[in-house]
Amino acid sequence: MTPRGRRPGGTDTRASILAAARTDFAEQGYDAASVRGIARRAEVDPALVHHYFGGKAALFARVMDIPADPAALIAAVVSGPRDRVGENLVRTFLGVWDSDDGRERFQALIRSALTHHEATVMLREFLTREVFGRVLRELAPDGPAPHELELRAGLAASQMVGLAVMRYIVEFPAVVDATHDELAALLGPTIQQYLVPPG
Amino acid sequence: MTPRGRRPGGTDTRASILAAARTDFAEQGYDAASVRGIARRAEVDPALVHHYFGGKAALFARVMDIPADPAALIAAVVSGPRDRVGENLVRTFLGVWDSDDGRERFQALIRSALTHHEATVMLREFLTREVFGRVLRELAPDGPAPHELELRAGLAASQMVGLAVMRYIVEFPAVVDATHDELAALLGPTIQQYLVPPG
Repeated sequence: MTPRGRRPGGTDTRASILAAARTDFAEQGYDAASVRGIARRAEVDPALVHHYFGGKAALFARVMDIPADPAALIAAVVSGPRDRVGENLVRTFLGVWDSDDGRERFQALIRSALTHHEATVMLREFLTREVFGRVLRELAPDGPAPHELELRAGLAASQMVGLAVMRYIVEFPAVVDATHDELAALLGPTIQQYLVPPG
Repeated sequence: MTPRGRRPGGTDTRASILAAARTDFAEQGYDAASVRGIARRAEVDPALVHHYFGGKAALFARVMDIPADPAALIAAVVSGPRDRVGENLVRTFLGVWDSDDGRERFQALIRSALTHHEATVMLREFLTREVFGRVLRELAPDGPAPHELELRAGLAASQMVGLAVMRYIVEFPAVVDATHDELAALLGPTIQQYLVPPG
């Protein structure tokens, strides 16, 4: 199966795939990079990439050290009750960010994404395609999302990004001390309003 | 008036004050730094600091290269019509950020504030005292702000910070392309809801 006689499994293969993915995402961006190209660079069969990492989005999450696969989280939220999308989204993200090792990795991720142009572009392409693309397809399944829907998704992202910055980077005391219940109660309606406008 | 025979005006004096302020804010943080201490380091009379820069908040804005004095902007917004605080705040900040030389300086400011711990602490103390302190005093003039009011001010900040990150750093296309009118219409109610809760 694997070209050039590499063994099909083990730490070595996984490490090779991760290293190749890191290089390809950085050089080509998220959109242009492909599982096939990453497999070629790692000298393994593309099926192994899927086997170990579950596809491009999940592989990217591993490379960027994102604590959980955002695409999977978003999918769970938008497939839940439509009238609780906002609250569920806030609770879901807080659950990941405040997990045991989530906070430090998340701080590093935000800093990197906001300061290295390459990382910014990768993250923007990933968020556009895998996270907000999914939200938009769920909200407007019948066609391409109009400008306003994209803007609404972007503003929902802006509220969650801003929450992350104030809670984990700036460490504004009242925002750091707030419980998940308080944040869900205050931010849930905001996200709901952006993603599921009334009427 | 000025100790040690320095002349009381001119480029030299202003530059000395700015250099002293930069050092004192960085070493002591915003709260602990004082006009008196900065004047002492610059070897000028404190009255000259007020004369040239108008006080500690405005001096800090100059040192941090903030395009406008946020304290003055906030004061104008909260003293306007109570039912348009959200919309006016969004329009006011966008006006500064999108001004001719505002955008590049603002990008540099965000990056610095998010990546250098010293700058993060300075900015947090400044925002807490000069920006949100003013909002809170306006919203609850009769006493110390309870936890919920501080949290609401922090969440309003989080929405504006997140907007800035998505529009100027991540450059999410729909958020970059949005007009001030669109952003005021969508974000105004969010800020209004946080700062001026109904009932």
